[in-house]
Amino acid sequence: MSTAEEIAKKARVAGNVLKTLSNESRSSILYKIHDALKANAEKIEAANKIDLDVANTSGLSPSLIKRLDLFKGDKFDTMLQGIKDVADLEDPVGKVKLARKLDEDLVLYQVTAPIGVLLVIFESRPEVIANITALCIKSGNAGILKGGKESVNTFREMAHIINDTIAANVDNTGVPVGAVQLIETRQDVSDLLSQDEYIDLVVPRGSNALVRNIKNSTKIPVLGHADGICSVYVDEYADIEKAKKITLDAKTNYPAGCNAMETLLIHPKCNQWWEVLENLSCNGNVMLHVTKDVKEAYTAKLEELNRFDDAVSSKLVDVNENEDFDKEFLALECAVKFVNSTQEAIQHINLHSSRHTDSIVTENKDNAEAFLRGVDSSGVYWNASTRFADGFRYGFGTEVGISTSKIHARGPVGLDGLVIYQYQIRGNGQVASDYLGAGGNKAFIHKDLDIKNIRL
Amino acid sequence: MSTAEEIAKKARVAGNVLKTLSNESRSSILYKIHDALKANAEKIEAANKIDLDVANTSGLSPSLIKRLDLFKGDKFDTMLQGIKDVADLEDPVGKVKLARKLDEDLVLYQVTAPIGVLLVIFESRPEVIANITALCIKSGNAGILKGGKESVNTFREMAHIINDTIAANVDNTGVPVGAVQLIETRQDVSDLLSQDEYIDLVVPRGSNALVRNIKNSTKIPVLGHADGICSVYVDEYADIEKAKKITLDAKTNYPAGCNAMETLLIHPKCNQWWEVLENLSCNGNVMLHVTKDVKEAYTAKLEELNRFDDAVSSKLVDVNENEDFDKEFLALECAVKFVNSTQEAIQHINLHSSRHTDSIVTENKDNAEAFLRGVDSSGVYWNASTRFADGFRYGFGTEVGISTSKIHARGPVGLDGLVIYQYQIRGNGQVASDYLGAGGNKAFIHKDLDIKNIRL
Repeated sequence: MSTAEEIAKKARVAGNVLKTLSNESRSSILYKIHDALKANAEKIEAANKIDLDVANTSGLSPSLIKRLDLFKGDKFDTMLQGIKDVADLEDPVGKVKLARKLDEDLVLYQVTAPIGVLLVIFESRPEVIANITALCIKSGNAGILKGGKESVNTFREMAHIINDTIAANVDNTGVPVGAVQLIETRQDVSDLLSQDEYIDLVVPRGSNALVRNIKNSTKIPVLGHADGICSVYVDEYADIEKAKKITLDAKTNYPAGCNAMETLLIHPKCNQWWEVLENLSCNGNVMLHVTKDVKEAYTAKLEELNRFDDAVSSKLVDVNENEDFDKEFLALECAVKFVNSTQEAIQHINLHSSRHTDSIVTENKDNAEAFLRGVDSSGVYWNASTRFADGFRYGFGTEVGISTSKIHARGPVGLDGLVIYQYQIRGNGQVASDYLGAGGNKAFIHKDLDIKNIRL
Repeated sequence: MSTAEEIAKKARVAGNVLKTLSNESRSSILYKIHDALKANAEKIEAANKIDLDVANTSGLSPSLIKRLDLFKGDKFDTMLQGIKDVADLEDPVGKVKLARKLDEDLVLYQVTAPIGVLLVIFESRPEVIANITALCIKSGNAGILKGGKESVNTFREMAHIINDTIAANVDNTGVPVGAVQLIETRQDVSDLLSQDEYIDLVVPRGSNALVRNIKNSTKIPVLGHADGICSVYVDEYADIEKAKKITLDAKTNYPAGCNAMETLLIHPKCNQWWEVLENLSCNGNVMLHVTKDVKEAYTAKLEELNRFDDAVSSKLVDVNENEDFDKEFLALECAVKFVNSTQEAIQHINLHSSRHTDSIVTENKDNAEAFLRGVDSSGVYWNASTRFADGFRYGFGTEVGISTSKIHARGPVGLDGLVIYQYQIRGNGQVASDYLGAGGNKAFIHKDLDIKNIRL
């Protein structure tokens, strides 16, 4: 049994090697891992069966058990295909982002490079280990992986296969043993969080409590996602049909998703705004937590239209203003309030949202632009459902998670979020003391070169 | 006296406004601040005089006192010009980095945006307040600024002038009161470090102890720079004249700089390698902390050449292998050892360096490329002095500091390091449930658009 320091050091050494490998080497090991997992499907299924048996006898909820089952439908094949898809993505490492001539024969380059060592903590879905392994190796990072305990047997079997494959191919791919390490217990995680000398980034994918807990326990930077408190603002100038369609999708397409709508802001001058609420409660079975003024106006309007019945009233409850606007319902429920301007909507969102994804429904370009510019969230949408906040939908191939951090990477994080950059200078013996500012007379040229023509 | 929470909240509110302002508004207030500081030069000089008097009577070192003196030479004018230089830089906010057609009338944009609220902690040089103020406002961030206590009178006077100027121009520039707040005591800093709800990034510029201390005391991400332990590796195939010139510059041009050479690695097969050491000690007055084998080989060689004299021997001491390769000498001293290959040099650097800037001197392209790719530092150089690691020399206009972080921003951090991005989606009522993967049949187009033609 390795100590946390040994694991972290081994990852650092592996990361230093991975960093130097070609895209071909990194991708070829992914193909070999794909083949090995495919060839060992029966062993993995047997291990998965043990996890499912334990889950069934321990009273886990049916929806969680469904997530554990790696061989349900085409899940296993999709997982395998995902590894090849990542292998085939463009190399995220070694991209020249800037090339600047500082002087004759003295050129500065900004070049993408792996971050180094990632500690990734994720939930129980067993297919995630393949996904994260592929993302780590493709991006040239060493990964220390910790999966949910419910999948421990499946994880362990897959980790053995992955590690055996890496070990058997060291000579032809160069990918080192230690590129991917699986750890199993909570204690391991807490010990690893103190290895800030060797680990560069912690990526927790899981509950809000987990993410907060980790931030409290480490000096290592954390790229996590906390709550997904997403809002839709139905503006005075909203097209009511778009508003109905977007809010219904944002709330009901997958209510447990972090990109689901939790708060609905309505401008009371919007024509037929009440149809948005009727649509949610009657067609979406959504419980509406409404403010007093919304309740009064909504009730009065539907009574006037002779549409206020039990179906409507049973889906109305008083909002708890101290809590419900800061709450992830993760269910067919949402908080509703009036706002009297786009500015008020922006202010509400910047105060209450979790900076995940927020949308305005309007036909008024000025209001839309003010919203897009004013809302401080990783996703700001105009006339689109918040449910589009997703790595696959953005075309990133796959995602590590959806970050609500304010630095490094926001929103759906793909391979680009797993690399950083280095500055290279390629010179011919130049020294600073020859230049202005450090004792000399030479001036810098500072001419940007066209990066399209540069191959390092 | 405001509490830390009030200061942080005020900054958050100001940041939400700054985020929405045009580049013209942000730049115009910088011009007004420039004019006001210029018009009030006498008041500032009087305040600076008080700081200098206190420093003189408190036994501060002459070099520190020199740093405090804002009116020495053209320092004040340079500071003023720096504000205008930042104002005139290209707008870092609202740049489109990616535009992707997801479907007809459904386009994803990645657009740069301010981070939000920055807490910047810096040393005593009084001109830094102007520099940081300019960088914060230009990048659309609210700044909470804490300067070294030795300059408190100068800072306070300048902060008054800056804040009065902002207040007097709210109506015409829109830049809000609270965009820049100066705090004065250590207690304030420690209280602010707990305001992770309102502050997005801490940028400490100062001693290593300060940076480490801050990382230990906050959940807010920290963009600091720790030690600058920079190495130069003189390869087997080094041009000896380049090696002599680069090592002398890297060590002696400004020994207290974080980009100064602290460790010298030499391949013993390099022709005339001993001249590198002779040059450092005789022409640079550098004390060489050498390993046993370096000492023996160097002494033997110089004796053979009849050049081993007191001048040489007085500059040789035994290295402390447990400490000196992890040490920032910040003086005319460096640690020296032999390495027998580029790989060994890379391994030494990845183990001991602070991931700041490291350089290889060689005429061998393969060794150079292996070094550039293998060394995990923010700056990796080929035949150039480590002293080039600097925002001005890189052409960034100015710098916030030099980051040794592994995420978000590495190396000299200019305006680009103070922004992040948001994803915008501009749609026409689309919902996720119409698309594959969320219940529908439509496929995404995922076609990248040419960002050169895009103006949002």
